[in-house]
Amino acid sequence: MERFNKNYQYQPKLPLTAKQIEEGIKNGDPSILSRAITLIESRNSKDRALVYKALENIPENKEKAFRIGITGSPGVGKSTFIESFGKYLGSKGLKVAVLAIDPSSNLTGGSILGDKTRMEELSNFPNVFIRPTPSKGELGGVAEQSFETILLCEKAGYELIIVETVGVGQSETHVKELVDFFLLLMLAGAGDELQGIKRGIMELADAIVITKADGDNERKAKSAKLSYKNALHLFPQNKNNWIPPVLTCSSIENKGIDETWKIIEAFKHHNIVNGWLNENRNNQNLFWFNEKLNQLIKNEFLNKKGVKAEIDDIKKKILSGKIDPFNAASKLFHKNES
Amino acid sequence: MERFNKNYQYQPKLPLTAKQIEEGIKNGDPSILSRAITLIESRNSKDRALVYKALENIPENKEKAFRIGITGSPGVGKSTFIESFGKYLGSKGLKVAVLAIDPSSNLTGGSILGDKTRMEELSNFPNVFIRPTPSKGELGGVAEQSFETILLCEKAGYELIIVETVGVGQSETHVKELVDFFLLLMLAGAGDELQGIKRGIMELADAIVITKADGDNERKAKSAKLSYKNALHLFPQNKNNWIPPVLTCSSIENKGIDETWKIIEAFKHHNIVNGWLNENRNNQNLFWFNEKLNQLIKNEFLNKKGVKAEIDDIKKKILSGKIDPFNAASKLFHKNES
Repeated sequence: MERFNKNYQYQPKLPLTAKQIEEGIKNGDPSILSRAITLIESRNSKDRALVYKALENIPENKEKAFRIGITGSPGVGKSTFIESFGKYLGSKGLKVAVLAIDPSSNLTGGSILGDKTRMEELSNFPNVFIRPTPSKGELGGVAEQSFETILLCEKAGYELIIVETVGVGQSETHVKELVDFFLLLMLAGAGDELQGIKRGIMELADAIVITKADGDNERKAKSAKLSYKNALHLFPQNKNNWIPPVLTCSSIENKGIDETWKIIEAFKHHNIVNGWLNENRNNQNLFWFNEKLNQLIKNEFLNKKGVKAEIDDIKKKILSGKIDPFNAASKLFHKNES
Repeated sequence: MERFNKNYQYQPKLPLTAKQIEEGIKNGDPSILSRAITLIESRNSKDRALVYKALENIPENKEKAFRIGITGSPGVGKSTFIESFGKYLGSKGLKVAVLAIDPSSNLTGGSILGDKTRMEELSNFPNVFIRPTPSKGELGGVAEQSFETILLCEKAGYELIIVETVGVGQSETHVKELVDFFLLLMLAGAGDELQGIKRGIMELADAIVITKADGDNERKAKSAKLSYKNALHLFPQNKNNWIPPVLTCSSIENKGIDETWKIIEAFKHHNIVNGWLNENRNNQNLFWFNEKLNQLIKNEFLNKKGVKAEIDDIKKKILSGKIDPFNAASKLFHKNES
């Protein structure tokens, strides 16, 4: 795969074959992994089919791999936390893959100032793989790409997959369906603009970490920890009987990182013993099968001639109170039935 | 519509015409309203079409009608609360429609002991209409029937529509999409079995009422009130800037009912002024249009020959880890495309 020949002339990369992908992933080759992810993100279904074919021939790494979702609104210090946490895990010799938010996209809340230095130190660890997650395209597509990317990383031998997201939109409840452990980062006493995460997310969290607990902020963070702890005890019980703990952490002073990891290990142990981890993965897989199927079926209907224009018209009528939404849907459907 | 002729011989009810439904609803005739709801719940699409036709000719009662969802797990005292609350509103001369959980169904958690006496006193108010909600059938169908029933009640002149549900399943997030105000009933210090509501519901509530705050329980209820109040302040802010209050109430001692009503009035005022009430109704209508359309499109696909059996087979393979859920959905879809 030399891109320069003996005379140092540029030679374009040759497209990968399914066999090459299979071998590369099996050997844990980061450059092949990276190219396979690019193929999964391709709009061309032939590219994706190539990776599917390779994936089919590699057994799952189910026993070893663990998936962690990390969410929190912009400003909470997600990338700083992930960098510290990743370095901690990397130093332990663990193989870690980080699917990070693409900082070039404003929509996903990547920090503009941090663009250049973002996770630079972390990327120097040979056992850490960092990849920006796709942030464009429809929700279903992003989830699918993330799912396949996670599978690729796991099959390439990564033991911990960290999926970073912004806690603002519908995507968060979807990320919960991609991971084993869902970590919510919060700030103590921050203005409302920083806490603008979606309602309902707090009840999905398996642990809450209060960030920036250093200097003048430490006292406030400790008091917030107590408040959140009390609040979490009032929530309805989780199916797996896990009571989400609350921690404080300081990425600057490097505090709370070790504790976070210990909690994740305890969670993993707790849920392997009670069988929940496996059951949850199964339910997630069924969830995604249904989601993907629904999306395909819906797109087929929407692509029928004139349907999109009709829907625009119906929506206007619904908003002016002229029609009943259920009745409108029935009429539209029966008019365009196959 | 006499069911007995001059000689007191039984005469079957004649089917209603759309015109009769229209007139009956316009006149607020409870027996016509009741029969129209039965038609909406019919499996026969002609029955339903009759009501749709009638509904189209009656203008909405948008300004006056307000929809309240009341949820809480079995044992929390929902029907007792609704009876007290309904009587309070009925005494004020308000026209109230209660869509109650059918107590004959175990699934929906109706109290078996309470079957006979359930809301008996409330049903004696001439300005109160009580109707058990359908609890069978698929989720989408139940929501549709509830939606049309709400519309019928509103068009028949009812100003307050109370929708009762059990806070245990997926249906709750759907009820949130049917109502303007979502009230969660909780018990102070109850065993886990009584608090088994779905996670995420607490963050959807517009107010929490702690029930059975009487006798020995009063002190505990007051302390729970404080805890919930503190917890709710930690939640991410609502789009309408409403901070959900927490109340205690005793249906036996008739305490807290007046307060609950005052909070609902304050909520209504707050959200009429800021425009949220109208915006929310519009979003709900668009939500239900999408839901219904998706359901129809999906059913069409599932009813294709062999598809259901194929899905059963795929699900087994997914559970044994043999196939990728996204890939499986794509393959199934393309095999059965129209």
